[in-house]
Amino acid sequence: MHKSTSSSSLGPGGLDIAQSFFKPIEKSSPPTPLNGHVKITIVGAGNVGMAIAQTILTQDLVDELVLLDANPEKLRGEVLDLQHAAAFLPRTTILAATDYAATAGSGLCIVTAGARQSPGESRLNLMQRNVALFRGIVPPLAKWSPEAVLMVVSNPVDVLTYVAWKLSGFPSNRIIGSGTNLDSSRFRFLIADHLDVNAQDVQAYIVGEHGDSSVALWSSISVGGVPVLSFLERQQIPYELETLEQIRKEVVQSAYEVISLKGYTSWAIGYSVAGLARTILRDQRRIHPVSVLAKGFYGIENGDVFLSLPAQLGRSGVLGVTNVHLTEEESRRLQESAETIMEVQSQLGI
Amino acid sequence: MHKSTSSSSLGPGGLDIAQSFFKPIEKSSPPTPLNGHVKITIVGAGNVGMAIAQTILTQDLVDELVLLDANPEKLRGEVLDLQHAAAFLPRTTILAATDYAATAGSGLCIVTAGARQSPGESRLNLMQRNVALFRGIVPPLAKWSPEAVLMVVSNPVDVLTYVAWKLSGFPSNRIIGSGTNLDSSRFRFLIADHLDVNAQDVQAYIVGEHGDSSVALWSSISVGGVPVLSFLERQQIPYELETLEQIRKEVVQSAYEVISLKGYTSWAIGYSVAGLARTILRDQRRIHPVSVLAKGFYGIENGDVFLSLPAQLGRSGVLGVTNVHLTEEESRRLQESAETIMEVQSQLGI
Amino acid sequence: MHKSTSSSSLGPGGLDIAQSFFKPIEKSSPPTPLNGHVKITIVGAGNVGMAIAQTILTQDLVDELVLLDANPEKLRGEVLDLQHAAAFLPRTTILAATDYAATAGSGLCIVTAGARQSPGESRLNLMQRNVALFRGIVPPLAKWSPEAVLMVVSNPVDVLTYVAWKLSGFPSNRIIGSGTNLDSSRFRFLIADHLDVNAQDVQAYIVGEHGDSSVALWSSISVGGVPVLSFLERQQIPYELETLEQIRKEVVQSAYEVISLKGYTSWAIGYSVAGLARTILRDQRRIHPVSVLAKGFYGIENGDVFLSLPAQLGRSGVLGVTNVHLTEEESRRLQESAETIMEVQSQLGI
Amino acid sequence: MHKSTSSSSLGPGGLDIAQSFFKPIEKSSPPTPLNGHVKITIVGAGNVGMAIAQTILTQDLVDELVLLDANPEKLRGEVLDLQHAAAFLPRTTILAATDYAATAGSGLCIVTAGARQSPGESRLNLMQRNVALFRGIVPPLAKWSPEAVLMVVSNPVDVLTYVAWKLSGFPSNRIIGSGTNLDSSRFRFLIADHLDVNAQDVQAYIVGEHGDSSVALWSSISVGGVPVLSFLERQQIPYELETLEQIRKEVVQSAYEVISLKGYTSWAIGYSVAGLARTILRDQRRIHPVSVLAKGFYGIENGDVFLSLPAQLGRSGVLGVTNVHLTEEESRRLQESAETIMEVQSQLGI
Repeated sequence: MHKSTSSSSLGPGGLDIAQSFFKPIEKSSPPTPLNGHVKITIVGAGNVGMAIAQTILTQDLVDELVLLDANPEKLRGEVLDLQHAAAFLPRTTILAATDYAATAGSGLCIVTAGARQSPGESRLNLMQRNVALFRGIVPPLAKWSPEAVLMVVSNPVDVLTYVAWKLSGFPSNRIIGSGTNLDSSRFRFLIADHLDVNAQDVQAYIVGEHGDSSVALWSSISVGGVPVLSFLERQQIPYELETLEQIRKEVVQSAYEVISLKGYTSWAIGYSVAGLARTILRDQRRIHPVSVLAKGFYGIENGDVFLSLPAQLGRSGVLGVTNVHLTEEESRRLQESAETIMEVQSQLGI
Repeated sequence: MHKSTSSSSLGPGGLDIAQSFFKPIEKSSPPTPLNGHVKITIVGAGNVGMAIAQTILTQDLVDELVLLDANPEKLRGEVLDLQHAAAFLPRTTILAATDYAATAGSGLCIVTAGARQSPGESRLNLMQRNVALFRGIVPPLAKWSPEAVLMVVSNPVDVLTYVAWKLSGFPSNRIIGSGTNLDSSRFRFLIADHLDVNAQDVQAYIVGEHGDSSVALWSSISVGGVPVLSFLERQQIPYELETLEQIRKEVVQSAYEVISLKGYTSWAIGYSVAGLARTILRDQRRIHPVSVLAKGFYGIENGDVFLSLPAQLGRSGVLGVTNVHLTEEESRRLQESAETIMEVQSQLGI
Repeated sequence: MHKSTSSSSLGPGGLDIAQSFFKPIEKSSPPTPLNGHVKITIVGAGNVGMAIAQTILTQDLVDELVLLDANPEKLRGEVLDLQHAAAFLPRTTILAATDYAATAGSGLCIVTAGARQSPGESRLNLMQRNVALFRGIVPPLAKWSPEAVLMVVSNPVDVLTYVAWKLSGFPSNRIIGSGTNLDSSRFRFLIADHLDVNAQDVQAYIVGEHGDSSVALWSSISVGGVPVLSFLERQQIPYELETLEQIRKEVVQSAYEVISLKGYTSWAIGYSVAGLARTILRDQRRIHPVSVLAKGFYGIENGDVFLSLPAQLGRSGVLGVTNVHLTEEESRRLQESAETIMEVQSQLGI
Repeated sequence: MHKSTSSSSLGPGGLDIAQSFFKPIEKSSPPTPLNGHVKITIVGAGNVGMAIAQTILTQDLVDELVLLDANPEKLRGEVLDLQHAAAFLPRTTILAATDYAATAGSGLCIVTAGARQSPGESRLNLMQRNVALFRGIVPPLAKWSPEAVLMVVSNPVDVLTYVAWKLSGFPSNRIIGSGTNLDSSRFRFLIADHLDVNAQDVQAYIVGEHGDSSVALWSSISVGGVPVLSFLERQQIPYELETLEQIRKEVVQSAYEVISLKGYTSWAIGYSVAGLARTILRDQRRIHPVSVLAKGFYGIENGDVFLSLPAQLGRSGVLGVTNVHLTEEESRRLQESAETIMEVQSQLGI
């Protein structure tokens, strides 16, 4: 473990000079426990994990940030780089950990680690390798931070969130997948851009499985308080529905497009997850479309499955799921998503 | 106590509709304890207390802010006004409390309440009225938040910080007076303005008693890493010393000037105390000139006295006092300040 | 005019020492024009004007802030107090002006000045005194900042926005009244509080005249993408409509309540106007319910009248008005508001 | 050029629906010129350029950000990824440009592009390739933004800043190299960490050539107003000098260490340059050690050479150089740095 301090490498002088600089005041009590101390652990120091780490640091969300990675060189390089930035940021402890003991007492654990598909590897085989990977990550996280909220960012996010739930033994309200939170933001951004308004004035959700089968909730889109679909009807602008469908497809394609152009995605997922972390750690009770245990919602009755629904989040994780009205078509597609995911899960032996 | 909610006034409907909007997810655990919850109490909803409250809210420092005041109407008006601003701010609980039980678990308690001098009233009589006032404030604060840091802003700040220490039973590291933190900032600002640089590039302290007898530490002033006094010597610009003395006098006069013009001070003390609150609650270990128990420092050996010294602050309050080199003249004046304050204290019967 | 500098009072030394500290580099060009310089003028240094000023400074919106007031002592006291806070803030020029020349080149001018009702004074007489006051304020603002957006906060805000438009000679897109922006925020906050969600997930507008006759647009309220009225219908929770009506009344009463308790409002209007300033100066194209020239919207056809409608704002002021669907009842009440305001205007002789 | 809008790809519907949503208000004037519009151009979308871009966006510094890169696929991928993050950020225009015309009117142009050393390539040959690269970058930047400040981040930064000066034809005050600004921050951070204080309470500069021959100004280090060297003398702690020398060496090694571990540096240089951008664009007049035309300072008399000195920066670039007192040893090493750099320059044929 490398701490954001060089004291150890500088010999015993550090203590002496620090004590010379500062004199303790009389009758001082021992330090009070760090009530209010906020700690996040991020597993995986790849492009996604580092973009999340950097955005969380810039937004001054935490007192302590711990990073873990299977590659100790890469991990140490990334953490050193962040520590060199420390002079520009509020004082935060940044640790590169090789031992899960360093993650103890985290309020939020974010897992970005995941196996990459080998050429010719079957999807099932890849998934089983990911399950094996999670067996080495999730139980020690849960052991050292038994009160944490656990967030999965690794893909396929919905199945791996289920896996994390099973491996952690946590109640379902403290297991969240980053899900379609970013897709929904892209969706809002594209609608805002199309109408030349600010994305913060647009409400719109993409729910369901994170991926090709995600479901856009047309009926709940509103812009500045104007429900878009009924507006289009009243204005008799039917052809705009095609534009909206084009926007949905553009969202689905956009991650693929970035990956084909630069090789991976990083900045947008970094902001997306940092935003979720803020809602959770500052108990903001905001509504985000994230992957949650969906059993019992919108007609998904059989079996345990995680997929994205508009959920209210706070310091204890998922507070509830919003009762959005779905059309029959939207409900049917959600249920199809659920069945597809459960089929994958059934093969995992968890 | 008035909470930032109108549920009670709106009848039982609130619960029903909230439950309809959100459905809990399955097997949810009870909410985890609010690890990381940050709470501040401010006693006194006058101009100073409210400027502190508003600046703390704007800087998004806390999850919960409790205000108390002897005047329930004024208090409720101020808190309502802040609550109306809530839509523009991150979600924070803002309470108007009439009972100290509402302050339970605060990490920082800030006392701005104080008696005003009546016409013809002796200074001693005023002080005794303030001691009586503090007897009603400090013990209940200490009882409900036994781990808090207690900060006194009321004037005369050094003596009242001593009074708060005695009444609280707290160890001295958890008792701080706002002291000369604002004077020092004014000092830095005026030096920066004089040299047309940014105040953040100026290091300069005013220490000692908050008031006319405060001591400017000329020998420690530096601008962009250039120690000012030795610079002036090398450049043979002796007459500038008069300018520096003019600046010190201007600082001493400036609070009087604002009071004579607008009747009170508010904005600057609001920022000053909000900055101290950030250093303490976010454990920033920054150095601020604040009123601390000075016994044992700079030749102040006899008796318990609080006055401002450059102190390192963090979540457990005062971490230590900086070992600044004082000239003999500076030391002598500090000791005189200490004796003046102790003479006042000796008459209080505490 | 008092600048945030003490050079003048400190004699000629300032220039010398500053020049000694810094040596210009060779072949330096003259300073480039301050492209990107952002300047705001606020007229009126009362509680409202000062809360706006302080919030704008804390949010780091401007490079230069100019305040004017008819009372030079009060003005100088307030500006000195803000200047003393400068060490805690990014470097900003803060000026107390007695001459409108100091406001030259402002991008936004905010008028908070207004006459107070004398005992027994008729509403018409008060209004005429306000018109006289605006004759001394608006033309010089318009002269010195011919490209500015002009925002009126003084009450009665709708009529005085019309007066400012007439006196300025500005095109109507550059005249805005703060209107029901704050009422709408209170409305959203109370709905959010009632449902225990974050106010940022609530969309809801109060439009029309700022005051008792304001109109709540029930049909456009949505929470987390769920339109509230149709939700209540589907859930068969009709009695909640009474709760919503209670919330609307609470908004109308809340300003009166704060005034009766503390004597004036300040904090909430400060945040509200600072938010409008950000949308305008940073060209955010966000939608706010503010007082705009309403002729041609929602059946308001006759005469020039300003009242609040959901308007998209940016650096050139009002960019457009949102085409919200109103019920017949809502339209009728808007038109009644318009007629009431025009009747007042007809008596002003402008 | 790809704009942060999808209108073009979505057909003519965009215009229609936007016009239906918003109705213009009557007698609207044409949009006022975007007074206050702040635009930055970054050349080079590699790890350094992107970390700078992301940090600038998060800190909400600009209205418009333009990126250029020789690799159009990589560039488009990076800009798309940033645009997908737009929903989480204030509204900003983000452009991927292939034509320098898109950079017109930038207030600050940041060059991060640079050639990499080929195996066996001589340092001189590498430098000549970089000069050739800059010939294609700097003149068009200067042409389209003739009033901009031009900042060079590419290495070797001091020589390339000189090259940019020659190629731009700009006065020297508008040419800055990022120089030792980051080294100085690392230096401050390590001293702060060693003493367990906040880095913001440490003043310390590394100046001269960015690289192995950089010069630490021991005599100007102060911590919380305490000059470190004279403190150590008074306390008779001579052995600490070795610790300070160890810290200096650690700074020099730290960039190499990060590069050897993760392959490049990014996060820290991103914050460092974003901080410089803030000081310049918001006219903060702060002092930063950056590469400036050093002729005439500290005994560097012969020839034009850029190296890092503590310079005051603002909207017109370099405002002056601080008159820090150097020891003879420090002066001698600075002059040696200058001569080494000039020798390289003499071979470039510029």
